[in-house]
Amino acid sequence: MCELLGMECNVPTDIVFSFSGLALRGGARGPHADGWGLALYEKRAVRTFLEPSAAAHSALAAYIKQNPIKTLLAIAHVRKRTRGPVSLANTHPFVRELWGRHFTFAHNGTVRDVKRHRLGRFRPIGTTDSEQAFCALMNRLERAFPKGYPEEREALWEKVAEAAADIGEGGTFNFLLGDGSQLFARCATKLCHIVRRAPFKTATLADEDFVVDFSSVTTPRDRVAVVATAPLTRDETWEIGRPGEMWVFRRGALVATLSS
Amino acid sequence: MCELLGMECNVPTDIVFSFSGLALRGGARGPHADGWGLALYEKRAVRTFLEPSAAAHSALAAYIKQNPIKTLLAIAHVRKRTRGPVSLANTHPFVRELWGRHFTFAHNGTVRDVKRHRLGRFRPIGTTDSEQAFCALMNRLERAFPKGYPEEREALWEKVAEAAADIGEGGTFNFLLGDGSQLFARCATKLCHIVRRAPFKTATLADEDFVVDFSSVTTPRDRVAVVATAPLTRDETWEIGRPGEMWVFRRGALVATLSS
Repeated sequence: MCELLGMECNVPTDIVFSFSGLALRGGARGPHADGWGLALYEKRAVRTFLEPSAAAHSALAAYIKQNPIKTLLAIAHVRKRTRGPVSLANTHPFVRELWGRHFTFAHNGTVRDVKRHRLGRFRPIGTTDSEQAFCALMNRLERAFPKGYPEEREALWEKVAEAAADIGEGGTFNFLLGDGSQLFARCATKLCHIVRRAPFKTATLADEDFVVDFSSVTTPRDRVAVVATAPLTRDETWEIGRPGEMWVFRRGALVATLSS
Repeated sequence: MCELLGMECNVPTDIVFSFSGLALRGGARGPHADGWGLALYEKRAVRTFLEPSAAAHSALAAYIKQNPIKTLLAIAHVRKRTRGPVSLANTHPFVRELWGRHFTFAHNGTVRDVKRHRLGRFRPIGTTDSEQAFCALMNRLERAFPKGYPEEREALWEKVAEAAADIGEGGTFNFLLGDGSQLFARCATKLCHIVRRAPFKTATLADEDFVVDFSSVTTPRDRVAVVATAPLTRDETWEIGRPGEMWVFRRGALVATLSS
């Protein structure tokens, strides 16, 4: 199994604190030593740092922690492989262009009978069920909205939830999906979130004695939503997802909860 | 204008020496301070490091030089913007998935009347003529080979050359295109290459007094093809491209020269 981390904010924020917590689980405190990735958006474009090796011992992960990049939307993943060998092509998050924007996807779990879904023009590069499921999801969205990114935001939410329910049927389809404007977070078995806003307090990482005082690095109008497989801090209250629930975050707020 | 760098080899090789030469032109010795990117393949998948700022002063570029990643195929670019603002979305190389592999593209020059070309399902994320031209090129390839990556390599070479000639007509279409197996290098006005093979010698960067002894880091069977906008070393003989010439490199060798 793998661990997911997503962040979606209303002001550019660096993900170092949360990413540090996740990276610890990538080979040091956790069994997820088979690769890691971090995708950071700038508007509709994303840049991705990927390594098919443990995050905990990675010089690149250390570089990112030392040189934080601020963003409104980030998706990260540490991998414990279940299907597909350890390789760059099998390292999450996966990225595809649709409607002139990057879509970014990371998955936790195993998708059942994934090859029954049509992929259209989206072809997997690696051999994971995760990337195959992502291609199936992208194909559903392209077919549903052939003219481009839908003007009605709710229509996209509903289509993502509907496709997620279908692709996830019988399997374990926890995922994060970013489109440059919003973050979709689907819970099959294990996912939680927190929205940090004023008054900001301190928080302590769950896996090591690292404390951050958010009030010293924020303004009263900031909102930062964080989604993770398991709570990353031990002194905050994380909302636990229910099976089949999909959250949509936009501008640092939970704007919708759909059944999927 | 921008500068291009490509490397294609028969054994995994790090691109640090050549990339150092290119990075110097990204803001320190040259005027190309508006962004840089480096794409490194592992089989059919690529990972890309991108920054919308000068390479010469970049901590990330320094990290890459200190932590070299070996690869069979790499494409790099430093940008002096002509069209489109400085942003991540406008930073080369651009990447798209086609036929279950990443295609990677970097461009030097300006494409004339680029909007006359059909893009099919490939949509630009940024606002450069370069990405638009890349989308047009991808669309041509997908339409020419709807069943997937062509079995006859020559058919793909000819289609790329034909599309390049058409898209480049009346403009300046120097580019590098990688598909995970080979490197296409098209000269409109300015491009050169060298194939390093045994007996390996020393070489000195053109822009600073940095010498490398390739014989100390290679075996007699190694072959490394390097393509660049301008010769990166001052004591080797670079082959200068003719306008409309397209080279194809595979396993560290020049396997074809087409008219495009």
